Amino acid sequence: MMNAKMNEDQWIKQLTAEAPTGPEVIAGIGEDCAVLDVGLPDRWQLLKTDVVVEGIHFDSSIPAQQVGRKALARALSDFAAMSGVPQHVLVTLLTPKPIPWTWIQEAYAGLYALARAYGLRVVGGETSQTPKALTLSITLSGYVEKDRCVFRKGAQPGDGLFVTGELGGSLDGKHLEFEPRIEQARWLTAHFPVRAMIDLSDGLATDLRRLLHASQVGAELLKEAIPIARAAKVRYREGRSPKPPLEAAMTDGEDFELLFAIPPGYAVALVDQWKAAFPEIRLSCIGKIVAQPTVTIRSRKTVRPLNLHGYDHLQNT
Amino acid sequence: MMNAKMNEDQWIKQLTAEAPTGPEVIAGIGEDCAVLDVGLPDRWQLLKTDVVVEGIHFDSSIPAQQVGRKALARALSDFAAMSGVPQHVLVTLLTPKPIPWTWIQEAYAGLYALARAYGLRVVGGETSQTPKALTLSITLSGYVEKDRCVFRKGAQPGDGLFVTGELGGSLDGKHLEFEPRIEQARWLTAHFPVRAMIDLSDGLATDLRRLLHASQVGAELLKEAIPIARAAKVRYREGRSPKPPLEAAMTDGEDFELLFAIPPGYAVALVDQWKAAFPEIRLSCIGKIVAQPTVTIRSRKTVRPLNLHGYDHLQNT
Repeated sequence: MMNAKMNEDQWIKQLTAEAPTGPEVIAGIGEDCAVLDVGLPDRWQLLKTDVVVEGIHFDSSIPAQQVGRKALARALSDFAAMSGVPQHVLVTLLTPKPIPWTWIQEAYAGLYALARAYGLRVVGGETSQTPKALTLSITLSGYVEKDRCVFRKGAQPGDGLFVTGELGGSLDGKHLEFEPRIEQARWLTAHFPVRAMIDLSDGLATDLRRLLHASQVGAELLKEAIPIARAAKVRYREGRSPKPPLEAAMTDGEDFELLFAIPPGYAVALVDQWKAAFPEIRLSCIGKIVAQPTVTIRSRKTVRPLNLHGYDHLQNT
Repeated sequence: MMNAKMNEDQWIKQLTAEAPTGPEVIAGIGEDCAVLDVGLPDRWQLLKTDVVVEGIHFDSSIPAQQVGRKALARALSDFAAMSGVPQHVLVTLLTPKPIPWTWIQEAYAGLYALARAYGLRVVGGETSQTPKALTLSITLSGYVEKDRCVFRKGAQPGDGLFVTGELGGSLDGKHLEFEPRIEQARWLTAHFPVRAMIDLSDGLATDLRRLLHASQVGAELLKEAIPIARAAKVRYREGRSPKPPLEAAMTDGEDFELLFAIPPGYAVALVDQWKAAFPEIRLSCIGKIVAQPTVTIRSRKTVRPLNLHGYDHLQNT
């Protein structure tokens, strides 16, 4: 799984520079979804495509139903990051020849069940052979109200940095079972002026940097405030992961939680109302946005530059 | 290439039955594009996804630029089939590790050049590794005016059956260089009441049956009127294909021409005005729609049931 996203930001940068664009493209390559002004009154169209490949994003021991579910859930998480309302799904399935028909049926069953739970329609797709790895590619289309669209850019110095849920150890099960934070994102933009948001797919350290880079700001994190998932601790204790829990929370990837910035004056009200709205989902203020474009992590005793990284730079840790 | 589409209709039928749908889905799985009423005044949104896989849809001798071009051109052809206006492209590229960066750059260059020629914007995508075959998946979004959308269904007994261009032998080069018939489709629906249309991707014999099946009608073809491409004749003569030219024209696939039905009263005017509008593109009336849901092919002497098939059923020929 580690290599899947390696150099992704580099690729994107190089391929973006040449891509044809136009004035109706509110946001294109480099955002969680494409944001398009196609003439819908008060709304922008959102488009997202995402792919899972056997041996890269899942291994053959994963039940088909969970593979189908995960493929769609990942794309939904990107919609959540923009406060989007997903509507329509296209599914492309590539299979090596010896895949049994029952596998395919179960993968679609898993995908369809999640689609139904989110009120989505599956409206097309493509099937083809491939020489080796099962591949499931998802296209998601939907919308967001123009005044509720949240980008990676927009965070301002002083903003509080919040993260939903708990981080790290996702491989123990969450990466298959996670609930995309659509409902929470919609609630947030209905009640609070969210300034910037991203979903955590490649680890807090990497995705935070993406948000900061887009916003041209930096951040100061509070070490004790990072919400570490129990799985991250258990995996380390049991020797199933070499990463100490905090490092796991910063770099494991596939958390599919939301990271967002809101103006400091709203922080208390947010924490308060969140508890009432989502009593079972933790919300943590993990630090604040600063003007200086670096990331520091503050513990009780020290302030240090952040030297933990997500997928992209694991080779340096 | 033959296996890529094998059983596609069967798959689609089985996977379609269970797919979640809704009242705003004007057409879903089984059409050339998904047609969606998303609240655009006078327009429907169109969505299409298409994929090319190395070793299935192209081999490694094909220059990267042509691979990128073809991936997008195929999806554009599906838009043409519905008289759609394509606007936005998402590109997913899966590469095995040893692919050189120059290959990727060239593939995108080919794709971007075609995108520019059609006024499209490339607004997102995804890159990932895959264990073996290079894979390029395209998502295309756009629109069609509600009164200009053409489906596979809608052909009526007595309608003339027309096909653009020439058929067969596409492997000699056309499958890489074809110009998707967007302009022609838009011209057709601006001037004529096109009742049903499909693009020829899997061979006339197969795609005609899809149009007829959707319209619940049959057809009588005129053997001498089928426009056979020079490449189909040359390939047979030179022993590079075992198929006699007519069979090649009926079954070779990847013609990416348009097959459509219009009321008989418009046939003469169509032929006439087409010549003025597109003097370099042949337009052939290849037969007519009949009520009986079978396909016959009439030559000067005989009328026989059509026993030539496209990709899907080549094993029976």
